[in-house]
Amino acid sequence: MKFELEAVDASCGARAGRLTLSHGEVLTPVFMPVGTQGTVKAVSQGDLRSIGAQIILGNAYHLYLRPGTEILEAAGGLHKFMAWDRPILTDSGGFQVFSLAAMNKVTPEGVAFQSHIDGSSHFLTPEKAIDIQISIGSDIMMCFDECTSHPVAYEDAAKSMRMTAVWAERCKRQWEERSATQQALFGIVQGSTYEDLRRESVERTVALDFPGYAIGGVSVGESKAEMLEAVERCTPGLPENKPRYLMGVGPPEDLLEAIERGVDMFDCVMPTRNARNGSLFTSEGRVNIKNQKHKTDFGPLDAQCGCPVCNTYSRAYLSHLFRSGEILALRLNTLHNLWFMLDLAAVCRQAILEDRFAAFKRTFLEAYFSADEPTGE
Amino acid sequence: MKFELEAVDASCGARAGRLTLSHGEVLTPVFMPVGTQGTVKAVSQGDLRSIGAQIILGNAYHLYLRPGTEILEAAGGLHKFMAWDRPILTDSGGFQVFSLAAMNKVTPEGVAFQSHIDGSSHFLTPEKAIDIQISIGSDIMMCFDECTSHPVAYEDAAKSMRMTAVWAERCKRQWEERSATQQALFGIVQGSTYEDLRRESVERTVALDFPGYAIGGVSVGESKAEMLEAVERCTPGLPENKPRYLMGVGPPEDLLEAIERGVDMFDCVMPTRNARNGSLFTSEGRVNIKNQKHKTDFGPLDAQCGCPVCNTYSRAYLSHLFRSGEILALRLNTLHNLWFMLDLAAVCRQAILEDRFAAFKRTFLEAYFSADEPTGE
Repeated sequence: MKFELEAVDASCGARAGRLTLSHGEVLTPVFMPVGTQGTVKAVSQGDLRSIGAQIILGNAYHLYLRPGTEILEAAGGLHKFMAWDRPILTDSGGFQVFSLAAMNKVTPEGVAFQSHIDGSSHFLTPEKAIDIQISIGSDIMMCFDECTSHPVAYEDAAKSMRMTAVWAERCKRQWEERSATQQALFGIVQGSTYEDLRRESVERTVALDFPGYAIGGVSVGESKAEMLEAVERCTPGLPENKPRYLMGVGPPEDLLEAIERGVDMFDCVMPTRNARNGSLFTSEGRVNIKNQKHKTDFGPLDAQCGCPVCNTYSRAYLSHLFRSGEILALRLNTLHNLWFMLDLAAVCRQAILEDRFAAFKRTFLEAYFSADEPTGE
Repeated sequence: MKFELEAVDASCGARAGRLTLSHGEVLTPVFMPVGTQGTVKAVSQGDLRSIGAQIILGNAYHLYLRPGTEILEAAGGLHKFMAWDRPILTDSGGFQVFSLAAMNKVTPEGVAFQSHIDGSSHFLTPEKAIDIQISIGSDIMMCFDECTSHPVAYEDAAKSMRMTAVWAERCKRQWEERSATQQALFGIVQGSTYEDLRRESVERTVALDFPGYAIGGVSVGESKAEMLEAVERCTPGLPENKPRYLMGVGPPEDLLEAIERGVDMFDCVMPTRNARNGSLFTSEGRVNIKNQKHKTDFGPLDAQCGCPVCNTYSRAYLSHLFRSGEILALRLNTLHNLWFMLDLAAVCRQAILEDRFAAFKRTFLEAYFSADEPTGE
């Protein structure tokens, strides 16, 4: 893996970079669509290519349970299994073990848990999380970490962060021993909302010298202010010449704030999940396609948008599909929301390269909050 | 509308034709994917174009209830509403009024019924069915008919068929008065399993001189033998130079039998519905993608198939998507099954043009029943 920092915006800390991975180049800032189970929900690999997705996520927990590493290995890895030839980043599975698995028991050695699919018992260690990700063959693997919930007591956050640091060391060793030179490994900073814990986590993680770093423990119920505070506490200690990934973030406005603070990579299920619930991003804010008024609106969802959906279909048709419970509604909505996020990251990149990110952000947010239709979600 | 009979196979009654409609040409025999609510379930209009769909179905009952004719008219018709520029045929809504509506009461004037969506009361007459289809703007409209269930007593079948004949006259008059020259109107032959009723229905319908004729009252629970008998009783009385449409048929083997007996047009929800249930057509018979053995089969669904799914994905991946309840499973399965039907009709056409339909049919069916996996449906 190679990361080239191309530009830092003179008006703020926003960065533009170029990440070279086994399956291709990724221009940053980048939004990564989430393909939990080897498919980004409601769209195809061809759709993703057509809207310019550079890299997608896969989830080690889900893929380990189904189809399982044996099938993934027999297929020649996830890329071949799902016929996706661009880069893939895999979540280590840690987050899902703690949030999805029926029961889990954490020891310093690892985590015992039961599958949310069939209740079967499993034991995941840092080493095994790496092995799974090697079977998957992702371009970027993530360290196995414990992600604390919010709020969490200081002592618990400290203990968890220190265990994550030890696990990071074990992950790195396993990665080096398996000599997976084709796959990069990112370390994850934890420490919840506590300044000194974040600082300690940054120091301990950076000391291990990973190809890239993620800020974890956000998007778990904290406020936007707390999330941005966590970012601000981490970025100063992260090496300039390595990519920075903010896990699980987020809505367009959060993306801009984090980019301004020097983050390069993002993932979030929100654009795809919201799409399936009828909440759509536009340049003037969210549109709730369930609202009556869209039934007779024969204009596009977003006149400013260049996506295949806005180029072809009307709000009235999208409204009809959604009301009728048609599968195509999920697909078109998802395609549009993903385009919106991918395009937003690309436009940010351009603004950074031209040293006008702060102004762009102001203009964007002004328009974005001009006609927002909250969905109550 | 123009219909040119290009060839009749020397080995049987199979026909190849060319139908010229407002929105383009349709080469027959043709399979028409069903787009009940202004979308063919699980695929997009772009998908349909890419797999060579020449004409799709819309349903007047569903579209009348939702989005409603006002919205369709404001959109400029269904073609513009759904962004589909190739031909559309609309079912008159008769079949759905009898099968779907919460309650219905038939009088010679028309049918009172309650919407299956919101229980609202409606009254549909032959004239109104035409008006709705004019609002939709389909290339081919169907007469409003009563489709008897199976089995049905002779007296009931006779009474129903005669009412359908009177309704056909009213439909034709309404069509002429609204001078919908851009839209063709097909008459529908009824008469259930009764030879003399079928004959009488053919005579009365043909006497009205429609641009095309449909054989209705099939695919309602009768045996394959009874269905083909109905076809055989109708085709001799139908004019050679007009297209013949067998409504609601059917699986690949039925398509071949009906083509052999001189039918030109087909529609059926089965390929799309089966796809969503994991039952997939292949040259060697149906594949039940839920079967264990497909989990580790890294070959294509059908090595003989040229569809985008078979060209890209493995059975193992399709199996994984289906087991994981992913939306992409519905789409890929549907795309494949539709391709199979469209391709089958196209290959039949070629065989007819080369006077070798009977031999093709034999070869196809031999292979098709060689490894069939019944799904219990």
